[in-house]
Amino acid sequence: MIRHYCGIFGIYNHAEAARLSYFGLYALQHRGQESAGIVTWDGQKLREHRGMGLVPEVFNERHLGKELKGDIAIGHIRYSTTGASLIRNAQPFIVRYKGLEIAIAHNGNLVNTLELRRELEEQGSIFQTSIDSEVFVHLIARNLNGHTLEEAVMAACRKVKGAYALLILANNKLIAVRDPHGFRPLALGRVAGAHVFASETCAFDLLEAEFIRSLDPGEMVVIEDTKVQSYKIETEAPTRQCIFELIYFARPDSLVFGEDVYQCRKRMGQELARESAPDVDFVMPFPDSGVYSAVGFAQESGLPYEHAMIRNHYVGRTFIQPSQDMRDFSVRVKINPVKSMIKGKRICIVDDSIVRGTTIRTRVKKLRELGAREVHFRVSCPPIKFPCFYGIDFASKGELIAANHSVSEIERFIGIDSLHYITIEGLLRSVSHPENYCLACFTGDYPIPCAGGGKLCLECGC
Amino acid sequence: MIRHYCGIFGIYNHAEAARLSYFGLYALQHRGQESAGIVTWDGQKLREHRGMGLVPEVFNERHLGKELKGDIAIGHIRYSTTGASLIRNAQPFIVRYKGLEIAIAHNGNLVNTLELRRELEEQGSIFQTSIDSEVFVHLIARNLNGHTLEEAVMAACRKVKGAYALLILANNKLIAVRDPHGFRPLALGRVAGAHVFASETCAFDLLEAEFIRSLDPGEMVVIEDTKVQSYKIETEAPTRQCIFELIYFARPDSLVFGEDVYQCRKRMGQELARESAPDVDFVMPFPDSGVYSAVGFAQESGLPYEHAMIRNHYVGRTFIQPSQDMRDFSVRVKINPVKSMIKGKRICIVDDSIVRGTTIRTRVKKLRELGAREVHFRVSCPPIKFPCFYGIDFASKGELIAANHSVSEIERFIGIDSLHYITIEGLLRSVSHPENYCLACFTGDYPIPCAGGGKLCLECGC
Amino acid sequence: MIRHYCGIFGIYNHAEAARLSYFGLYALQHRGQESAGIVTWDGQKLREHRGMGLVPEVFNERHLGKELKGDIAIGHIRYSTTGASLIRNAQPFIVRYKGLEIAIAHNGNLVNTLELRRELEEQGSIFQTSIDSEVFVHLIARNLNGHTLEEAVMAACRKVKGAYALLILANNKLIAVRDPHGFRPLALGRVAGAHVFASETCAFDLLEAEFIRSLDPGEMVVIEDTKVQSYKIETEAPTRQCIFELIYFARPDSLVFGEDVYQCRKRMGQELARESAPDVDFVMPFPDSGVYSAVGFAQESGLPYEHAMIRNHYVGRTFIQPSQDMRDFSVRVKINPVKSMIKGKRICIVDDSIVRGTTIRTRVKKLRELGAREVHFRVSCPPIKFPCFYGIDFASKGELIAANHSVSEIERFIGIDSLHYITIEGLLRSVSHPENYCLACFTGDYPIPCAGGGKLCLECGC
Amino acid sequence: MIRHYCGIFGIYNHAEAARLSYFGLYALQHRGQESAGIVTWDGQKLREHRGMGLVPEVFNERHLGKELKGDIAIGHIRYSTTGASLIRNAQPFIVRYKGLEIAIAHNGNLVNTLELRRELEEQGSIFQTSIDSEVFVHLIARNLNGHTLEEAVMAACRKVKGAYALLILANNKLIAVRDPHGFRPLALGRVAGAHVFASETCAFDLLEAEFIRSLDPGEMVVIEDTKVQSYKIETEAPTRQCIFELIYFARPDSLVFGEDVYQCRKRMGQELARESAPDVDFVMPFPDSGVYSAVGFAQESGLPYEHAMIRNHYVGRTFIQPSQDMRDFSVRVKINPVKSMIKGKRICIVDDSIVRGTTIRTRVKKLRELGAREVHFRVSCPPIKFPCFYGIDFASKGELIAANHSVSEIERFIGIDSLHYITIEGLLRSVSHPENYCLACFTGDYPIPCAGGGKLCLECGC
Repeated sequence: MIRHYCGIFGIYNHAEAARLSYFGLYALQHRGQESAGIVTWDGQKLREHRGMGLVPEVFNERHLGKELKGDIAIGHIRYSTTGASLIRNAQPFIVRYKGLEIAIAHNGNLVNTLELRRELEEQGSIFQTSIDSEVFVHLIARNLNGHTLEEAVMAACRKVKGAYALLILANNKLIAVRDPHGFRPLALGRVAGAHVFASETCAFDLLEAEFIRSLDPGEMVVIEDTKVQSYKIETEAPTRQCIFELIYFARPDSLVFGEDVYQCRKRMGQELARESAPDVDFVMPFPDSGVYSAVGFAQESGLPYEHAMIRNHYVGRTFIQPSQDMRDFSVRVKINPVKSMIKGKRICIVDDSIVRGTTIRTRVKKLRELGAREVHFRVSCPPIKFPCFYGIDFASKGELIAANHSVSEIERFIGIDSLHYITIEGLLRSVSHPENYCLACFTGDYPIPCAGGGKLCLECGC
Repeated sequence: MIRHYCGIFGIYNHAEAARLSYFGLYALQHRGQESAGIVTWDGQKLREHRGMGLVPEVFNERHLGKELKGDIAIGHIRYSTTGASLIRNAQPFIVRYKGLEIAIAHNGNLVNTLELRRELEEQGSIFQTSIDSEVFVHLIARNLNGHTLEEAVMAACRKVKGAYALLILANNKLIAVRDPHGFRPLALGRVAGAHVFASETCAFDLLEAEFIRSLDPGEMVVIEDTKVQSYKIETEAPTRQCIFELIYFARPDSLVFGEDVYQCRKRMGQELARESAPDVDFVMPFPDSGVYSAVGFAQESGLPYEHAMIRNHYVGRTFIQPSQDMRDFSVRVKINPVKSMIKGKRICIVDDSIVRGTTIRTRVKKLRELGAREVHFRVSCPPIKFPCFYGIDFASKGELIAANHSVSEIERFIGIDSLHYITIEGLLRSVSHPENYCLACFTGDYPIPCAGGGKLCLECGC
Repeated sequence: MIRHYCGIFGIYNHAEAARLSYFGLYALQHRGQESAGIVTWDGQKLREHRGMGLVPEVFNERHLGKELKGDIAIGHIRYSTTGASLIRNAQPFIVRYKGLEIAIAHNGNLVNTLELRRELEEQGSIFQTSIDSEVFVHLIARNLNGHTLEEAVMAACRKVKGAYALLILANNKLIAVRDPHGFRPLALGRVAGAHVFASETCAFDLLEAEFIRSLDPGEMVVIEDTKVQSYKIETEAPTRQCIFELIYFARPDSLVFGEDVYQCRKRMGQELARESAPDVDFVMPFPDSGVYSAVGFAQESGLPYEHAMIRNHYVGRTFIQPSQDMRDFSVRVKINPVKSMIKGKRICIVDDSIVRGTTIRTRVKKLRELGAREVHFRVSCPPIKFPCFYGIDFASKGELIAANHSVSEIERFIGIDSLHYITIEGLLRSVSHPENYCLACFTGDYPIPCAGGGKLCLECGC
Repeated sequence: MIRHYCGIFGIYNHAEAARLSYFGLYALQHRGQESAGIVTWDGQKLREHRGMGLVPEVFNERHLGKELKGDIAIGHIRYSTTGASLIRNAQPFIVRYKGLEIAIAHNGNLVNTLELRRELEEQGSIFQTSIDSEVFVHLIARNLNGHTLEEAVMAACRKVKGAYALLILANNKLIAVRDPHGFRPLALGRVAGAHVFASETCAFDLLEAEFIRSLDPGEMVVIEDTKVQSYKIETEAPTRQCIFELIYFARPDSLVFGEDVYQCRKRMGQELARESAPDVDFVMPFPDSGVYSAVGFAQESGLPYEHAMIRNHYVGRTFIQPSQDMRDFSVRVKINPVKSMIKGKRICIVDDSIVRGTTIRTRVKKLRELGAREVHFRVSCPPIKFPCFYGIDFASKGELIAANHSVSEIERFIGIDSLHYITIEGLLRSVSHPENYCLACFTGDYPIPCAGGGKLCLECGC
């Protein structure tokens, strides 16, 4: 399973800043389910509440109505991939330096953390967590002497390498930054006189906020009182937005990188159909991931669209495990095929990715048991062969099935009659600005060279 | 909103009877989310656990692994419609009478409860709850003197009028009954040497149990040790199965009343398309209720199928309310349209029902705001004009929009360009045995005349 | 350990009836920690909330401020001794009969339950619980035809045998009853224009209510509107109040049966000192049970009083168990001796009872390990040789150490230098009306003969 | 109310290090009820769990049995006095520096924190909390370059001023330190081959550990593998142990500073009686604080000891507040007088301190209402006139009644017939080494001069 990394939300100048942040994070919940946090500026000091769990589990009316006072807020939701799930790693992260309190919410992954950390420690920095964001904020603090906060943030951005969409809150200043490559998305909007920032525009829709624009790669927006200023991190970095946001991460009703996610996914399905449409009775998705590309595939191929795998809407996160002999239970509990639709049929399944292939294999086996005559598989994403160092947790290279196996080996492993992955060219035809995307997970061509010597490097093979 | 009433599950002769009941109820969760309960027979006495909430909230490992010992179990999930949500109303319901403990799990609604209650009280019965099932069990107990349990159950069944699918557990005997009209479904299956009963076959699929058959209307199945016996309640009642199970209630991957629910719903969409397919750009459902009829509609009409309303998968039951000025928030939080798909488009929405029309109206208004050029609405269910007394909570007659308004009035209220409800004839063409269904909510032609004088009667207008 | 059975509280005509009941139950918490419940009459119907746990765990502000509306309330706290701890057994218990709702809160144990239950079942009664109080309320209901509620209660009281202090709430009538022997206490008070009832007067102190009087044995008080009427159950039963309320149960700051509990306990200690004061360095209690008799003992004997066993005030009910090798942990965690006070000392311990002797033995062993030269034990209660059938759970006869062993055997078992139990005569000298007490647990002379054939009888040896 | 500041516990070389720490903290619970935490060294890295609440609320079996692996552990319980109660302030506190993880548990208060913090920030340190312990650990880290951990700790100790008992865990090294004045206690013991440290010896008793000795003021003990080494912080600081540990803080069954707490308190009562024993009917404590000095007072004066104020053992931390008109409720709910003991009596109350006097005043008023003829008050602690900067939270100077009022003014405020505080001389006669104690709260003679300019200084009046 591919894990979402984080979502961020910010708001400036709204009497119910914490409450709107709550709803904003709620709309971004698909980007992280491990922890959530909100920090507000009450005019005197920062106030914070963070906790493990989903947004509605972490916050209650007392937090929103009483404790998180103030007109400015930033929020964060997180899915952690490394180490234990600890409350200490929940964000936004706050530090105190010379009387100034700084809160930071970070979506993305830095690649020169170890190097920077070593350097900072030589100068006396001491760390409390293992998260990237702590390095960021130490860099900011070290650059504060004699400089404004925005200068310090800018200086820190020039030091770090990697992916980041950031929200920084200090006193009555709210700063939003996207890294020079623009790996992670960040959008600016307005609602009722307030400015809002969010990872995806679906957060704006829930608040009935107006979408203004995406931040540019390398752009820093600073809001203070009624003043909104935009700065540019000088750099020659080419734009390298994460195409996986479009394939898989973002909610289909969001605009991301200026692309309409729903339309992109449909186009991927259409391209896929053009590349390889089998002769079958119908097309169906594995709900809900493949729905939109399957719809496009069906339209382009002229094959009937069916929805013959039924999702159990009540599957929650806590669930008592069955005893040993209930084979493949956790796969079965989530979706169940409609038997009468499967028996004797030739079926084409459209899905948005194959990572390890094990879940798909179990599902296909079930279809075979129910009498499916042929099962073909079409994937709206090229083979994932390389790990991502910019914020997506695909599992390590050793576990990526496409990194180690040919298409026909995967066909045999999954037990299907035919398999086709969309080509990189087909994928790029589905988006508006094909030159602006990072394709490293397919090609191994990393926009930022590996920092070397670190843990990540062991995997990239550099 | 239409509320599901209940689901029941039973198992005989399995070492992990409670655990399998847990999974069975889990698969039936869509039929009731208010409370859940399991009762087991440990060879000496009944053991029980009931609680408010979803199945995984009510039970923990200790309940399943330690407390609910025994090879026989019955379980129940409930959505209550009358009175407060009280733990005392959760089922299975247990009574003690002359040293015999009897547990009952009941899906359905009786219509002569008040009359029977009055009669029983004259004879000295005292009640603790306001639920129908308590009347049932008093009747059974009163008939026990000198008779076997199955004779007593049979006698009770001859007294009560209304809808019931029942599971009764006493000592090592498990009894399953369907009322003579067969309003509610009940299926029999087998797994690993055990017999299982469930409201819907999707519970069998999760357990990898084999579906044997549906119980007949008026059939009582008694299991004791290795003996399985079938009895018939003598009655001339015609079969009147609840067609709403097929339209709306049952999970699409279930078999109910011998019908394949998915196929039925697709056929309803196809019939609907034959009756009235508008000239539009595409067809889409309101997820997830209308999906299957929309798929059928799209196939029959040749119109493109889209999935342009996006469901938020993290909407839970507890949620902090927004402040006053976030208009229509609770509608918006559940599904959000894809703007680019709506703007300038002529859209046909297919859904499975209109009860009050207020939610649909809000959604349509949103589509208009986003620039939809035309919005047409097709419903795979005829107009609901009469309340149900057999276990469905449609809201009272005064609230049923079709009971009080013409199609063109509803069109105007909802704000759509055209509205078409499937005809009763079209609906009946979608099912295999059209003569076996109760259509009272459409026609007012109740299979069981109202008992008179009761609370329900005030609504039916008799 | 001796278990407290129950406490009851009632209030009539107070705008915050539920809230005051909450505080009343809170003050009676020592009488039962398993479950708590409050029922109010809101002018139309009964409202109830019951739950497992301590009073502050069961109720929250919403219950007291919103849900439990009404000017009349009864409440109950419970320690169950038989069967599982089930929410269904929590009181007050409510039944519905011919449109009348009746709530009952019962402290005590009936002895002819099985007989009555059989009789009622012959007449068609069906039971849901195994608690005595359900029999009571069936009897009341059966007597309601053509009679007032107070007549029906009176008739029920004439049928049942055993111990009961009752509060009954139906419509706007509150009825309080004490059984003819007066086994359990019940006091009447007033606060701010309202009448209040409570098991012990310490509940009145917390509410700053005025204590009016104890109910007489066999008295029924009925409050309706502004009318307070007293009735007498005609019976020749002699008064037989439970002396264990004075020895152990009641809080020392309560008045019970017209006796001042603190003074009684001090007098028991004084009598005990007169009967047998050893030559030791000091007297000390096992906190907190023996404190008051130890104080009296020290004063009478002239020996120094010490408090050299220290109680851990944070021992709660949930506690992770240590690993195997932490011997006697659960005894040690509660009280810890002051080493310097023990070493080389001759000590007299005064306590209020010995049931099984095992905890005392462990504590004495610890004192020996710490170097105590002599350990003498004085008990302000005669040897408990017979089980109680009227509401105290001493453990069964087989477990009562004094039922099966001589004083010198017990001395040896516990490991003490001398043991003396107060004589029955000494005990009776400590109370004001010695003729009014039940001494059955010491003498086996039961005021109500055993009903025969029941479960209890197996133990009494009749 | 005087607040306890903290308790610490450590263990080296025990297979169940976390579990024993849990029990150790449990025994120290009286020293802090706000948060608890345990950190273990699993051989590779530190593992931690911290939470808000009592020890049994914070930890569950999973924490102790699975997550907190390792043979070495340190634990902390805390009562915070400044700022909000935040999980981020819970200890042990962990930092990472150059690949080394350091955990620290700190009991006490530093006085030059602001100064040190400023200095560290100049050198680039960034802080996450407002607690003293973070300064300590930054100092340690800065001294690590080219030095061993013990050297770095020693260097840090030479920089900080104030009160500290510390446990430090890094890799497989456990370091325990007491500040040069020895303000806070720290004891060393052994159990089953393991070394243990605890604030008080009552923690050893619960574990059946053997008490070895108290650490000396200024001593640092380092344990690594089987090696135990002791170092001395070179300093000329005189020993200044906190006499309030003996008067009030420590559990009476503990040994603290080589003193037996129970015996000390009794001697304080005896000295007090010698100084001023009134002619009354009896002596009683306010439970449970004054019990031990009251016992000594009664023995020395020959007056009868009574226990006539009854403590409610079920008063918990969460409690629904009564409505406005229940005057003095929170005082009344905790202890209730035995009326018959009060009426017409001349009473001498012995207690261990008066801080603001408001609670005592309410209690005395109640005694007067119940008819007490005379109420005399004796306090086993001299008047508290100055705030403490070394870890006790007496409330600010403006709130200390003895700082601003004469004895006769306090008599009048509380409403008593006579008041006597033990003299400083009398107090010192109660302890073994009178020259070794800090008396600053009585005399204003602070062992460490105020650092100046800080927040604390505003209060000391320097």
